[in-house]
Amino acid sequence: MQPFEKSEYLTRVAKVKERMAARGLDVVVAVDPANMNYLAGYDGWSFYTPQCVVVAQELDEPVCIVRGIDRNGGLVTSYLDPDNMIGYPDHYVQSTERHPFDFIAGVIEERGLGNKRIGVEMDAYYYSAACHNALVTHLPNAKFEDATSLVNWVRIVKSPQEIQYMKDAARIMDHVMQVAVERVEPGVRQCDAAAAIYQAQVSGIGGKGGDYTSICPMLPTGKGTSTPHLTWSDAPFESGEATILELAAARHHYHCPQARTVFLGTPSQKLADAAAVVVEGLNEALAAAKPGATCEEVEGAWRASIAKSGIVKDSRIGYSTGLNYPPDWGEHTASLRPGDKTVMQENMTFHCIPGVWADDWGIEISECFRVGPNGAEPFCTTPRELFVKA
Amino acid sequence: MQPFEKSEYLTRVAKVKERMAARGLDVVVAVDPANMNYLAGYDGWSFYTPQCVVVAQELDEPVCIVRGIDRNGGLVTSYLDPDNMIGYPDHYVQSTERHPFDFIAGVIEERGLGNKRIGVEMDAYYYSAACHNALVTHLPNAKFEDATSLVNWVRIVKSPQEIQYMKDAARIMDHVMQVAVERVEPGVRQCDAAAAIYQAQVSGIGGKGGDYTSICPMLPTGKGTSTPHLTWSDAPFESGEATILELAAARHHYHCPQARTVFLGTPSQKLADAAAVVVEGLNEALAAAKPGATCEEVEGAWRASIAKSGIVKDSRIGYSTGLNYPPDWGEHTASLRPGDKTVMQENMTFHCIPGVWADDWGIEISECFRVGPNGAEPFCTTPRELFVKA
Repeated sequence: MQPFEKSEYLTRVAKVKERMAARGLDVVVAVDPANMNYLAGYDGWSFYTPQCVVVAQELDEPVCIVRGIDRNGGLVTSYLDPDNMIGYPDHYVQSTERHPFDFIAGVIEERGLGNKRIGVEMDAYYYSAACHNALVTHLPNAKFEDATSLVNWVRIVKSPQEIQYMKDAARIMDHVMQVAVERVEPGVRQCDAAAAIYQAQVSGIGGKGGDYTSICPMLPTGKGTSTPHLTWSDAPFESGEATILELAAARHHYHCPQARTVFLGTPSQKLADAAAVVVEGLNEALAAAKPGATCEEVEGAWRASIAKSGIVKDSRIGYSTGLNYPPDWGEHTASLRPGDKTVMQENMTFHCIPGVWADDWGIEISECFRVGPNGAEPFCTTPRELFVKA
Repeated sequence: MQPFEKSEYLTRVAKVKERMAARGLDVVVAVDPANMNYLAGYDGWSFYTPQCVVVAQELDEPVCIVRGIDRNGGLVTSYLDPDNMIGYPDHYVQSTERHPFDFIAGVIEERGLGNKRIGVEMDAYYYSAACHNALVTHLPNAKFEDATSLVNWVRIVKSPQEIQYMKDAARIMDHVMQVAVERVEPGVRQCDAAAAIYQAQVSGIGGKGGDYTSICPMLPTGKGTSTPHLTWSDAPFESGEATILELAAARHHYHCPQARTVFLGTPSQKLADAAAVVVEGLNEALAAAKPGATCEEVEGAWRASIAKSGIVKDSRIGYSTGLNYPPDWGEHTASLRPGDKTVMQENMTFHCIPGVWADDWGIEISECFRVGPNGAEPFCTTPRELFVKA
């Protein structure tokens, strides 16, 4: 049932243990659903209740702890021995008297790990302050350290099979963007375009279906293009307005994101000029990306390219991506921005998205790429331009 | 732009302040995206970076703090004065040197609230242990208390306009379930059924479009029905197997969830019997729900009904629902389970979902309802039965 051979999961666990050893950690408690999937194969929309995968130097296999009703889902999706797939009773769920991490602390204690140096993902989405409190309270002999993104940093270099899933996602992505651009038309309701996008994302193409993506389709339009992250309404698209399509496709939870901007009618010179600046800057960034380059050098190539344009861009222009679950397809490792000294290696994968937003307009044109032996290899083939529908 | 009158938002804020006063709290920092939307109108898929709404007894209006690039989105979607819509610089995003809650602590200090009794949502999804650490570290003179679900408990009784959005969502839900049941056919790929479900959810019906739902469509099939929360694959549905459809529709982020089970072929007597038991138990629970009844009494009606059947159900049979964002459409207030003494009031809204899962099969048939003056008023009209497609 797993999308990877068991040996690939075991290799991942071994790499995490190496990184733990370098940090002097005996145990890591992974709560990030992508990390749980990466290490245990576990897959389900159950991250709305606390759950985790425990990796310990002295245990051969990770231990996965989920809500009781999700244990069967663990047995269906994970390679773990049933003894290492543990469910907690339902009275722990959203209780004011007890917390699932009370139970999880008990399992850690039972496995003889209660007095160890334990790394926890302090800033993972689903590791709430209450989860941490429960663990600290119930494991008084443990030493806790912040291991946020420790597993994520192992994920940053993709295996051939992971790259293949991102390529599969890219085929879907090209198709999704074509559908999206077709559907953005004057008078068409935004929700109908969003519905068509979902349909294309999930049915997939070429016999390969798509997964839900970690962020919903985003399609700010008109004045809404002055900001990212707005979704859709019932209102129709209007002539004389731009729409930003920030979308993705996913295969086995491996993402290929892509953003494009569509203008209905004749764009202003300002927007057309901005599109040219953004595309040129994106091209320069892609040209700078290669094994040995740092992330800040790649951002610097963009920055140098746009310097003469008057466009100012304060936010990062990209980030590592790949395996993920809601609410973000970013990996929370390397960012393309000043100060990020991460050295690019072959089979790292980035989404370079130099979005520009002003007070009442904006533009996004992006590219997701693999770091190949000789430079950036974009996953997609969608034309890299402002789409103008006169 | 807002789906509610400004006066309704102000009423909500006033109710939250009453509840804060009863707890002796001067300030509440709401991180739950549904709480942020409820109080400030703020709406966007930006909860993957830390953000919050601060309600203070001594401030007339809440203060909303988001990532800088999302501030324009706040101005578009919220009723707040621009002075109360604050963006933090992008170098706070996923940095190992600084945390967005360092900045948020600074805003709290600037507004003269640094030495107050501050309620924080310790167990909200997006209030990570690192968020809490940052706040505690940077506000050494504040007293912190756990205010998890304080705002949620205000949300539990819906206004007429909120009920209307849930009714709109219910019309979409009935349509979505019809589409879903039609598409579950031998040989149809699961992903194509999921795609059709998304299409129906988002296009909506009767001129009203739908929102993304807080949980993706879940459609475990065959042996996968032994567990909830599995999603789809490329594999086709097969004759002789059951599929559980646990879905929702949403309007302005107000949800109406619904679960049904479809069997392709002739179900075993065991499954048919279980369906009858579940429907009867669900009917008994609905009959018990009315103003003045407690949540545990409603669960008790179910429990009494199924007692003779041999079916055992350890997990809760329902929860309050309504406004929400990923990853959960449950409200995290009242649950239909033993020990929950919440007294039902008119315009509370619940999803009663007595799912039953055994080792290699399962069944779900659910109903979302409003507590009306005389009892439960189900939102949907989908037949309450096991769908058999011979």
